Amino acid sequence: MNGLPQLRVYGKVYVLRLGHRPERDRRITTHVALVARAFGANGFVMEGTCDDHVMRSIEKVLRSWGGKMHLECGVDGLRYASSWEGDVIHLTMYGVPLEKIIDSIASSPRPKLVIVGAEKVRREYYEIAHYNVAVGNQPHSEVSALALFLDRLFRGSWTNIMFEGAKLKIIPSEKGKRVMRVDGR
Amino acid sequence: MNGLPQLRVYGKVYVLRLGHRPERDRRITTHVALVARAFGANGFVMEGTCDDHVMRSIEKVLRSWGGKMHLECGVDGLRYASSWEGDVIHLTMYGVPLEKIIDSIASSPRPKLVIVGAEKVRREYYEIAHYNVAVGNQPHSEVSALALFLDRLFRGSWTNIMFEGAKLKIIPSEKGKRVMRVDGR
Repeated sequence: MNGLPQLRVYGKVYVLRLGHRPERDRRITTHVALVARAFGANGFVMEGTCDDHVMRSIEKVLRSWGGKMHLECGVDGLRYASSWEGDVIHLTMYGVPLEKIIDSIASSPRPKLVIVGAEKVRREYYEIAHYNVAVGNQPHSEVSALALFLDRLFRGSWTNIMFEGAKLKIIPSEKGKRVMRVDGR
Repeated sequence: MNGLPQLRVYGKVYVLRLGHRPERDRRITTHVALVARAFGANGFVMEGTCDDHVMRSIEKVLRSWGGKMHLECGVDGLRYASSWEGDVIHLTMYGVPLEKIIDSIASSPRPKLVIVGAEKVRREYYEIAHYNVAVGNQPHSEVSALALFLDRLFRGSWTNIMFEGAKLKIIPSEKGKRVMRVDGR
């Protein structure tokens, strides 16, 4: 299951991306998906029409760098969130500060759906969400908001995530790039 | 200076964005700049041609949400980094893990230049940098990498940053949006 021995276990931690606009949001949405993977979520779901560019980018990263994720696109966002069996968390700069609410969120063992919007998010999501969470009450980015949220949820244990089935692995280095090819797995 | 009473003080913490491509990177670069501001940097500098869209977006946020930042564009990135008086930190997935190096970086009181690249970064930057730092050795995003780096550098004190001169302020709420207009400053 994603090879996350040191992460807290919630069954599912899925990210639902709302309001993706194919041309404008392609790179941001791809970054949201990569953050989901790198910081320990095990599902990425896109509302609305499927954007093959985004999906192919994530699949390519999964093939090269390992890990398993549930990927899904074209869902009805409101229906998906309403029928989620677990906690629904909506990241918004208008919400309750992360540091005040994270212990409460983290203490429940239920699966978690983390909703990440684009510019405008329909009012209904604020109602459906069990938690509207602000990663700072300042404008920045859904990419950084998701990263900080997952960092705090899993208490920084993304530093130890092992991604099974990786073909490539980085050897950390002080200068330059060292990438190892992992064979025979 | 930016109203950051609870942040560690390094004089300057500037972010240098490399390799911005006007159409393709506009939104990502804007998010990088907003992360710089929201997480406590006090300067944002862009290599290469000036992209007015990006600069206008940041200036607009500064006017509405407060804070002061040094903004600059059109610089020669290599020259800028080489002549920086202080520590040069290059964020790259190939570098030394953040958690292993952050105490060493944070313990120096010198001004810090944090370099954030786009897809390809010239080899010279790896050489110029005093620290090549990896926020996880996995692909994700320069937006999340910068946010986590600043979070650890300032020990999470972005939650307490006060932005002077803000016209708008959010009243955190459990459901919905509450924005207060701040007058008379």
